[in-house]
Amino acid sequence: MKPYRDMTPEERHHEYAAVKAHYNELKTLNLSLDMSRGRPGRGQLDLVSDILHVLDKEDCISGKTDLRNYGVLAGAPEARKLWADILGCRFEEVFVGGNASLQLMYDLVAKGFSFGLLHSEKPWCREEGLKWLCPAPGYDRHFAITEAFGFEMITVKMTPEGPDMDAVEELIKDPKVKGIWCVPKYSNPDGIIYSDEVINRLAAMKPAAPDFALMWDNAYVIHEFEGDYVPFPDIISLCREAGNPDMVYEFASTSKITLPGAGISCMAASEANQKYLQKLIGVQIISYDKVNQMRHVKFLQNKAHALEIMKKHASVLQPRFKAVIDALEAEIRPAGIGHWETPKGGYFVSLYTLPGLAKRTVALTKEAGVILTGAGATYPYGKDPEDSNIRIAPSLPPIEELVQAMDVLCTALKLAALEQMGE
Amino acid sequence: MKPYRDMTPEERHHEYAAVKAHYNELKTLNLSLDMSRGRPGRGQLDLVSDILHVLDKEDCISGKTDLRNYGVLAGAPEARKLWADILGCRFEEVFVGGNASLQLMYDLVAKGFSFGLLHSEKPWCREEGLKWLCPAPGYDRHFAITEAFGFEMITVKMTPEGPDMDAVEELIKDPKVKGIWCVPKYSNPDGIIYSDEVINRLAAMKPAAPDFALMWDNAYVIHEFEGDYVPFPDIISLCREAGNPDMVYEFASTSKITLPGAGISCMAASEANQKYLQKLIGVQIISYDKVNQMRHVKFLQNKAHALEIMKKHASVLQPRFKAVIDALEAEIRPAGIGHWETPKGGYFVSLYTLPGLAKRTVALTKEAGVILTGAGATYPYGKDPEDSNIRIAPSLPPIEELVQAMDVLCTALKLAALEQMGE
Repeated sequence: MKPYRDMTPEERHHEYAAVKAHYNELKTLNLSLDMSRGRPGRGQLDLVSDILHVLDKEDCISGKTDLRNYGVLAGAPEARKLWADILGCRFEEVFVGGNASLQLMYDLVAKGFSFGLLHSEKPWCREEGLKWLCPAPGYDRHFAITEAFGFEMITVKMTPEGPDMDAVEELIKDPKVKGIWCVPKYSNPDGIIYSDEVINRLAAMKPAAPDFALMWDNAYVIHEFEGDYVPFPDIISLCREAGNPDMVYEFASTSKITLPGAGISCMAASEANQKYLQKLIGVQIISYDKVNQMRHVKFLQNKAHALEIMKKHASVLQPRFKAVIDALEAEIRPAGIGHWETPKGGYFVSLYTLPGLAKRTVALTKEAGVILTGAGATYPYGKDPEDSNIRIAPSLPPIEELVQAMDVLCTALKLAALEQMGE
Repeated sequence: MKPYRDMTPEERHHEYAAVKAHYNELKTLNLSLDMSRGRPGRGQLDLVSDILHVLDKEDCISGKTDLRNYGVLAGAPEARKLWADILGCRFEEVFVGGNASLQLMYDLVAKGFSFGLLHSEKPWCREEGLKWLCPAPGYDRHFAITEAFGFEMITVKMTPEGPDMDAVEELIKDPKVKGIWCVPKYSNPDGIIYSDEVINRLAAMKPAAPDFALMWDNAYVIHEFEGDYVPFPDIISLCREAGNPDMVYEFASTSKITLPGAGISCMAASEANQKYLQKLIGVQIISYDKVNQMRHVKFLQNKAHALEIMKKHASVLQPRFKAVIDALEAEIRPAGIGHWETPKGGYFVSLYTLPGLAKRTVALTKEAGVILTGAGATYPYGKDPEDSNIRIAPSLPPIEELVQAMDVLCTALKLAALEQMGE
């Protein structure tokens, strides 16, 4: 096959007829497949379900404290230690939350809105025209939070190294800019790891807003599915060393280590931030579920053992990602109608079609029974300026279905490209 | 013994000497006892700790949904059914939360503040001078929430039937009054059950504010420790029948049914409220921990079985409450220096000293090694206008320690009374 652009109109016409025939054939299969969300499949759930049985009541005694009872706002000390181990930060910098790091992120923004953060002059709800930096493509649930609280979201271009730092450094001169969303390791959706240079520039930012929040969603901190664990710097230390100890809030969870939506989360931040925030959080909750925290401590033990469990997840995930990349290499690369990164961790493959094809491709895919994340969802306000990015989440479907789904996706993209080029 | 008020100065002088001697004797015991919070004791924790082992992965399948995975914002259907059973409301009216109903209450107020409730003209943060009704004595953590969000808290007197409804009906004519806190069954701290008349008047309120929130914290809905379960009306139905379907938000949790801080909570509200709120909550969290919800469904089964478990808690709690009441009857009643209700459920005994004695009593108690809830904590801003109310939480200490602690409390109160009367 040669690139579509290089085909003669007649060749394109033939190609269109062939692709269209294949697409119609796929439609007759009446597929119903879902690649829209980074959900682990049943095999992954089963391989960690022993966690349901590991905890005994004796495991809930921590020193003189019975963790089955109320109290201990910052979380079970053993769980704080586990997170400090995984993230590479200090014990004192860890607050352990409930089943969702998203909730901790939302609540951090909500606290800023209602009361202000540690260095705020006033609550954000008392300021006008606030803005937030959104490296994009990015995570739609991040953008939904800052949209809900009324921030004007400024798109920052993602590069293969992380957010475009020249743009970021320029934008933060505006004191109305109050924060930035980052998924620094196996970014959602591109699956890239921020380079050391980008990380160091982020840690060293000198924003005009004294209460600027570097939201560091380290969702995939130990989530390699190919190759060995890639060490990653501790952003809390880097910010402290750069003279910005209170600028950063780091989040992580076990949602893709144990059970999604039944795990434990954490927020790491400077001790000064912890002191300030825990005073506010203490009005909201007496503590998150410490029994589930201890269940996780017993099951995961420490970072080394958690990494062993991640190897098991990897054995399930790696063939799925390979199937996605193989299909793209076989079908899309030769046609010259898209490009992508090849991640070694995380939960997504981010496909960039030629401009103007993403919406049509996702619609055609849906028509053939395959649900993808909505085109545009990876951009603020759901608007991809180039209508190009499609997020592929290969973790949920069984592999034979995934192969079918990728066939549908590649066929749909080809069809969209040929339609655009005039068949 | 005769009432202190009827004693001659000389008799009081003798009594003071005797009480003081006993107090000094108690101090030499170097006690360290805690009656400050409604925490279950170890025996109660042990009797429900089988919950740690009941759940198998097969129990997490609900129809076609694997509840170990992300999704299902409103909670596991089985858990919604369980709560509807316990509260007497409809399945559709139940949202199941995490380990803390306090968090759901805080979040409801926070949502009103940031975005407004269903019938708000604007977010509460865009209005000035808002107020909140606080029947008092009441729950300090409720008051802390409305204080944090800047409401002016208006104290409403508690009667043995519930809040003074004449006062409430007058106060809600002010459109700045946005809500009221209620603990309708075994109220915190008085332990009284709101009368049918009070409940019906609350359900039929016609507040000037279209977005007035009747916060119905049904924390002790099945928490009898003496006698049989007392049926209690469904406030959601009553409000609907009174033409106020969207005025009420009901909260409950299993914190004192299974493990405190590791249970499940719920918010019941009209379907219209659920629709409105879940749209907002969906930005904050994908769902609360459904695995823990299913663990509770397996362990509690249904309302009837939950009531059986509550009988076991009752067998631990009843002797403790008896010890408190016995001590008050023996030591305080004859001296005529306090009065109290005798609850049959809940977690507290509310002692009213003669005016002006609560602070001094709590301080003297503390000096002798017994921690009580701070005097005044049961009133907005921590200010008891009569300095009279002391909340006693007998659940945590072993019974022999509780008897000692009550000895300390009664002695301290006598001392404070005699000091005030001029020894």
